[in-house]
Amino acid sequence: MEINPAAIQSRFLRACHRLPVDRTPVWFMRQAGRYLPEYRAVRARYSLLEICAQPELAAEVTLQPLRLLPVDAAIIFADILLPLIPMGVRLDYSAGEGPVIHTPVNSYADAAALKPIEPREALSNVLEAIRLVRHELNGKVPLIGFAGGPFTLACYLIEGGSSRGYLKTKQMMYAEPHAWRLLMGKLTRVVTDYLLAQADSGAQVVQLFDSWVGTLGPQDYREYVLPYSQIIFRALKGAHIPAIHFGTDTSALLPMMREAGGDVIGLDWRVSLDQAWNMLGPDVGVQGNLDPAALFAPKPEIGRRVVSILEQAGGRPGHIFNLGHGVLPDTPIENVLTVIELVHEFSKGARS
Amino acid sequence: MEINPAAIQSRFLRACHRLPVDRTPVWFMRQAGRYLPEYRAVRARYSLLEICAQPELAAEVTLQPLRLLPVDAAIIFADILLPLIPMGVRLDYSAGEGPVIHTPVNSYADAAALKPIEPREALSNVLEAIRLVRHELNGKVPLIGFAGGPFTLACYLIEGGSSRGYLKTKQMMYAEPHAWRLLMGKLTRVVTDYLLAQADSGAQVVQLFDSWVGTLGPQDYREYVLPYSQIIFRALKGAHIPAIHFGTDTSALLPMMREAGGDVIGLDWRVSLDQAWNMLGPDVGVQGNLDPAALFAPKPEIGRRVVSILEQAGGRPGHIFNLGHGVLPDTPIENVLTVIELVHEFSKGARS
Repeated sequence: MEINPAAIQSRFLRACHRLPVDRTPVWFMRQAGRYLPEYRAVRARYSLLEICAQPELAAEVTLQPLRLLPVDAAIIFADILLPLIPMGVRLDYSAGEGPVIHTPVNSYADAAALKPIEPREALSNVLEAIRLVRHELNGKVPLIGFAGGPFTLACYLIEGGSSRGYLKTKQMMYAEPHAWRLLMGKLTRVVTDYLLAQADSGAQVVQLFDSWVGTLGPQDYREYVLPYSQIIFRALKGAHIPAIHFGTDTSALLPMMREAGGDVIGLDWRVSLDQAWNMLGPDVGVQGNLDPAALFAPKPEIGRRVVSILEQAGGRPGHIFNLGHGVLPDTPIENVLTVIELVHEFSKGARS
Repeated sequence: MEINPAAIQSRFLRACHRLPVDRTPVWFMRQAGRYLPEYRAVRARYSLLEICAQPELAAEVTLQPLRLLPVDAAIIFADILLPLIPMGVRLDYSAGEGPVIHTPVNSYADAAALKPIEPREALSNVLEAIRLVRHELNGKVPLIGFAGGPFTLACYLIEGGSSRGYLKTKQMMYAEPHAWRLLMGKLTRVVTDYLLAQADSGAQVVQLFDSWVGTLGPQDYREYVLPYSQIIFRALKGAHIPAIHFGTDTSALLPMMREAGGDVIGLDWRVSLDQAWNMLGPDVGVQGNLDPAALFAPKPEIGRRVVSILEQAGGRPGHIFNLGHGVLPDTPIENVLTVIELVHEFSKGARS
């Protein structure tokens, strides 16, 4: 990517390009979420999908954490399953914590019936929310767009919701390769177009959440996922959009996620950041990787863990501090603030 | 361990000692379980705990898969939570798939209230079942005993059952270190005594199921789990009992599980067997690691995966074929048989 380092001011964007930073940038997956009273107040009046459908509401929720916490990036409020709705999938979140898909994909015919979409039209609400947030942020911090990875979306579609073992998904992978390829091809096209449209609408970085990919062994990842993720990251590279590639349980998949693409690899907490970065090589950034559960620990314990992660990063350019997964619903806000302050304080001049 | 190689006939025991074998030994976690009609027939009349409480029934269920499948080892039918009952924990399995613990451990006082037990008395039913099975097997194949790892037992106790995020467990670890150490110390003593008692009763090998340990990052494993597991494996080594050390999601923990102990490290399917073995070093055996979901694949696909694992093992002494976790409830029996036949066929003379 041809860039002019001096032209990039934000420490988050600089880290995405592996440029030196004044402090390690920090943001949190699900930083707009249930742990914030302001968010719960909005959710008391609107459902998740209602918020996502109204750009003003989505923009408001996106900005809530920015008013409370000195994070170094905003991430647009949306749901990874949104692109499935215009594709013809009926889903709701009313049953409890996870989504329920009323029209699961169990066959080649089901995959064939999924409608191709033009995200610039079908997901224009999200794109409008991105434009609103960029306007409101007015350059204060960069805005991250995102989408679910094709594998993770396929899991939801096939299982009909969340799953522990992803057995149906693997059955389709192993026993119905034509259906699998059709489904993954369709999802890959939608995700690619959607992320490019988010970038065109103002997202300055995008993150691919392939959250459930860690359920696969390395050979399955290579055969059934990597080729599709590669298409997405090649398109983003071609469009000069920095991309973060995130999954959980990926300790053994990291070299292949690196191969699939992304300027920054998002780590969960199950791996040591230094070992993971050594495995990935120097030509890529890393994001992570505090255990979200650590935010329920006493402050000295939180501090010990934050410092350990910063020491493992060792001031190498390209580290973005984050949790290993999203902020948990009952997380004390003051502990989130503590993490941000510690990251900024202890990374100051770390590379002197 | 001082052994006379010529005196060990069974290919399973030989593999545990990393001695050359005629064929790669194969057994399955949960090989006695719901996928067998014979097991479902017993379960239609008796609860899980009733079977475990009656040595004749437990022995019968243990032997069921041996009559149908040419596996190279038997594993005593029991439940990892059994030792908790005499310690004063009230639990049942009636709610659904997982256990419910009615007296969870949420404080130092709760941990202090757990009764110390003498497994030779308090778990004599399991030990009697082991004696019965050894008698019935009459040397045909070896018998494996087992226990849950202290961390995994602590998770059940603290969460009150199964969990996805183990948040309460981590909260106790981080915020109440005295309670954690008291709980883990008590569980470690019970597990050690229980496994030694199983060996004295006839178990020829024991497996420690530390199934949930993969929820921890490497530093947490080292600090909060490793010292306890080490006590168990040292005691087993002192008693000359070969031990298998198993967990899931452990890709990044394998070097530390090796350090904790065990003659054989049990792998889940998320890691390549060859990479894992290289990481563990040559002085330890490995067990695994077919994805249980692969047993739902068409036969050629199953064959491809079995052969790949055998090729990765490369005929090195010390490989025990198994799944990466337990046999799933709806697994077709004929596919389990296929795996056994393929393992025996393709490992024949592999090291010629």
